[in-house]
Amino acid sequence: MLKNYLLTPGPTPIPPRVLETMARPIIHHRTPEFQKVIQEVEEDLKYVYQTKNEVLIFAASGTGAMEGSVINLLSPGDKALVVRGGKFGERFGEICKAYGVEFIPLDVVCGKAVDPKKRDEALKIDKKIKAVYVTLCETSTGVSTDVEAIAKIVKNYEAALVVDAISGLAAIPIKTDEWGVDVVVSGSQKGLMIPPGLAFVSVSAKAWGLIEKSTLPKYYFDFKAYRKAIAKTDTPFTPAVNLMIGLREALKIIREEGLEVIFERHKKMASAVRSSVKAMGLELFAPEAYSDGVTAVKVPQGIDGEKLVKTMRDKYGVGIAGGQDEMKGKMFRIATMGYITPSDLIVCIATLETVLSEMGYKFQLGSGVKALEETLK
Amino acid sequence: MLKNYLLTPGPTPIPPRVLETMARPIIHHRTPEFQKVIQEVEEDLKYVYQTKNEVLIFAASGTGAMEGSVINLLSPGDKALVVRGGKFGERFGEICKAYGVEFIPLDVVCGKAVDPKKRDEALKIDKKIKAVYVTLCETSTGVSTDVEAIAKIVKNYEAALVVDAISGLAAIPIKTDEWGVDVVVSGSQKGLMIPPGLAFVSVSAKAWGLIEKSTLPKYYFDFKAYRKAIAKTDTPFTPAVNLMIGLREALKIIREEGLEVIFERHKKMASAVRSSVKAMGLELFAPEAYSDGVTAVKVPQGIDGEKLVKTMRDKYGVGIAGGQDEMKGKMFRIATMGYITPSDLIVCIATLETVLSEMGYKFQLGSGVKALEETLK
Repeated sequence: MLKNYLLTPGPTPIPPRVLETMARPIIHHRTPEFQKVIQEVEEDLKYVYQTKNEVLIFAASGTGAMEGSVINLLSPGDKALVVRGGKFGERFGEICKAYGVEFIPLDVVCGKAVDPKKRDEALKIDKKIKAVYVTLCETSTGVSTDVEAIAKIVKNYEAALVVDAISGLAAIPIKTDEWGVDVVVSGSQKGLMIPPGLAFVSVSAKAWGLIEKSTLPKYYFDFKAYRKAIAKTDTPFTPAVNLMIGLREALKIIREEGLEVIFERHKKMASAVRSSVKAMGLELFAPEAYSDGVTAVKVPQGIDGEKLVKTMRDKYGVGIAGGQDEMKGKMFRIATMGYITPSDLIVCIATLETVLSEMGYKFQLGSGVKALEETLK
Repeated sequence: MLKNYLLTPGPTPIPPRVLETMARPIIHHRTPEFQKVIQEVEEDLKYVYQTKNEVLIFAASGTGAMEGSVINLLSPGDKALVVRGGKFGERFGEICKAYGVEFIPLDVVCGKAVDPKKRDEALKIDKKIKAVYVTLCETSTGVSTDVEAIAKIVKNYEAALVVDAISGLAAIPIKTDEWGVDVVVSGSQKGLMIPPGLAFVSVSAKAWGLIEKSTLPKYYFDFKAYRKAIAKTDTPFTPAVNLMIGLREALKIIREEGLEVIFERHKKMASAVRSSVKAMGLELFAPEAYSDGVTAVKVPQGIDGEKLVKTMRDKYGVGIAGGQDEMKGKMFRIATMGYITPSDLIVCIATLETVLSEMGYKFQLGSGVKALEETLK
């Protein structure tokens, strides 16, 4: 008999209150009852986004909304500046390429955020650059980018700032309006605590200006169609009804706790994870500019990282994430966002200790949990 | 106190067995447990599609997969032949337009399918036409198209035949391989009995040939990325996990009952609805070429169709669909697919009688239910 724990950086666990609302009989989407859902979700998303801008909602994975943020803002001949620090930063470049948009990659060292000293230098934005793409929290490395500082620079140009906050929204602070972020892309399965299948973008007036001029082809992800629909509390295509109903409940939970309290909770838990792995003699993948939503840890030498993740999951029921692509087997990642609690962390770190010990890694058994308890208290 | 009944042509009601599986704690998508879900869903979708072709699965509404079937098959300079008989047929044309693909509309009279006598004439497919787009069941009019006959003609050309079966799959017969349909597009919220948010396409060898040559831009709906992933029992982007788990259960229910039995059941129920409304003196919108998945009925003169639908829903808890766009207020639609049963129809027709009577329509009260009982027995 196993009890399962999920500490992956998406999907994250779903609160029972939310699961229950999604298990109710389905309702039709062109009814006053569902319009109320759209209205409440829209209002609460603005709260989470910290914005007065419209938030558009798509039935899609986060990648769909990332694509939307390229094809709606740009036109053939435009250029994009893409800050790449991992798998998800690279994705913006891939999308630009697929649409024949020239992009200037600004590659930052994996595991490090954009160097503040080099930032002004690197962010020379010529007139052809119409959008700058940045990842708030790079899920693949656990690195968080100083979006506020980048926004201050981009603000002076015609270019719009697009932030992929799929793995950051409702997990770590992003002040859309205060910082001046034009487009914030997000998804449902991370800080928002519902299953994957919904994606969101907030759009500023500056971005709408670009959208009006954009000539890249689009249909399903045409922002203007969604804007027109949301003005009538409607959707242009059939919405993912039960995910929307789950989202309404999840957003209620978020408002009840309050964004600031949530950010503090995540911060404390992430700090506890960092202390804990360090106490076990392990090394953080991103010792600087780490995100409080997910912590990436280097697999110690001589240990098979893929086996570690598999054993924790299959033998002990504890789901954490391994490394992706070239980091496969060399990294593991523990999420601290959404419906992941200190009690989950205790089970996770204790299990990590047990499995590392079984695999022959030398360290003081119990040291991780001790550090965790000390930081969490 | 009201008990709610949903007889709309999407979303259709969800069986409790399916709702229950979607309310279980979420699992991660890169695990053997989820791979088993993908594998089972893929196998059972092939059964429902009656095909050996790969079936690609998208986290999106059906429209997303419709867009996919345009941008993956065509290239700039290609032409498309689009059979339009209602809102959803028109959508293929809109998508072509958005991507700068010239399309030749073949407009069929609303409420009538492609005239078999004119079909050969109309389907003159010149060399530039690379795809023919047809709607199996036009949800907006309740008309079903003779896809088998069209497939026989298109087979002789280089063009691929694309069928929108969003509102027909698992509701009425579509024999993908036997008829030779190259791309069959579908969605989750109709015959498949799960909430909206998943879309599907099956792709034939002939279609893959066109896809290899297609140069229209794409990323999220890039069929090749999905084919590559499914070969490894994976998905290119985060899948809609709980919808996939619900789909697995819904497909199990379909296999348990068997496609042929399901089609017969839908046929009998649709026939009962037609008899029933005719007995009440009402007129079918599509007296020929009707679909057994949804029946469109003309609102009698002097009756406010929008009020009829609203009253049935708000006062009696019975959800049927009104007319869309220019048919608003002039039509109502009753679905007979998926988890809609004879008992739902009895409540629906009795309520229709009650409300029509309240609204001053003159007919023999009870005549509809009588005809229903006679046909269903």
